[in-house]
Amino acid sequence: MSLLDSMIRRLQAQKAALEDAAVRLGSLDCPADAPVLEFGLGNGRTYDHLRELLPGRPVYVFDRQVAAHPECIPPDEHLFLGDLFDTLPEARVRLGCTAVMAHLDIGTGDKQASMALSRRATPHIAALLVPGALVVSDQPIDDREHFDPLPPPAGVQPGRIHLYRRQ
Amino acid sequence: MSLLDSMIRRLQAQKAALEDAAVRLGSLDCPADAPVLEFGLGNGRTYDHLRELLPGRPVYVFDRQVAAHPECIPPDEHLFLGDLFDTLPEARVRLGCTAVMAHLDIGTGDKQASMALSRRATPHIAALLVPGALVVSDQPIDDREHFDPLPPPAGVQPGRIHLYRRQ
Repeated sequence: MSLLDSMIRRLQAQKAALEDAAVRLGSLDCPADAPVLEFGLGNGRTYDHLRELLPGRPVYVFDRQVAAHPECIPPDEHLFLGDLFDTLPEARVRLGCTAVMAHLDIGTGDKQASMALSRRATPHIAALLVPGALVVSDQPIDDREHFDPLPPPAGVQPGRIHLYRRQ
Repeated sequence: MSLLDSMIRRLQAQKAALEDAAVRLGSLDCPADAPVLEFGLGNGRTYDHLRELLPGRPVYVFDRQVAAHPECIPPDEHLFLGDLFDTLPEARVRLGCTAVMAHLDIGTGDKQASMALSRRATPHIAALLVPGALVVSDQPIDDREHFDPLPPPAGVQPGRIHLYRRQ
């Protein structure tokens, strides 16, 4: 499979998983303005999709720096910039345990390093999420203490994207 | 439409157009090892797709520098690195008028500048292409002296990608 094919499938899987999580979110009993978390802004593609998909919900973004398309830069008050392990405790203070959905796109291309980062971050991310919150992740999350796996969205090959529900 | 949706559609249009051009190439009377030209390597996605689609044909790549995925870096002898207006005459000397297909992905995000670049480059690109050669381009090409427009591939919105045949 060419890199072009594999990129198309990766983006389609992201889209399907975000939309699946948004539908599931509809049956969660939570305030209409409860926040959504985006880990890894990149060029802002999925941030843009999340804010279109969930109008009215603030999308808080975590990244080292802003390198997004000019139209997809979050307002300053929704940005947590810097090392994740500095900004996660900051978010815990500012937001408490209120978020209803999180999208993790923190893979670096190095599978071992990405898994280690995800393993270290997920307990901190869990602390920001209400029970029943939805999580979409590019890396598998093996933290069964906090996250129950959900089936992949229809038409998406298992392993391409990962869906979880916060216990 | 979100940036995620628009990226998916752009990549799907690229894929469909490259595959359409490859099918049309099948009915062109030309040597089996006649070259293909890729203008703009980027991360190597479409280069990878082209070499998968057209095995046996050398794919010559033009770009300022190599910033592609390690598995999608062309061999040195197929690389024309540097300013396009230095490398195009060099390619004319090395390859002559032998190429049977070209993919142009030289848009910079600035529409005016991209159109101006395309307008300046297309007569030089035409000089590398045999009559009947296929061209796929991210920018419209208005050079009717050298290129006849072809309909967009099935299912692709007109204007998203552009197909031409060298006169």
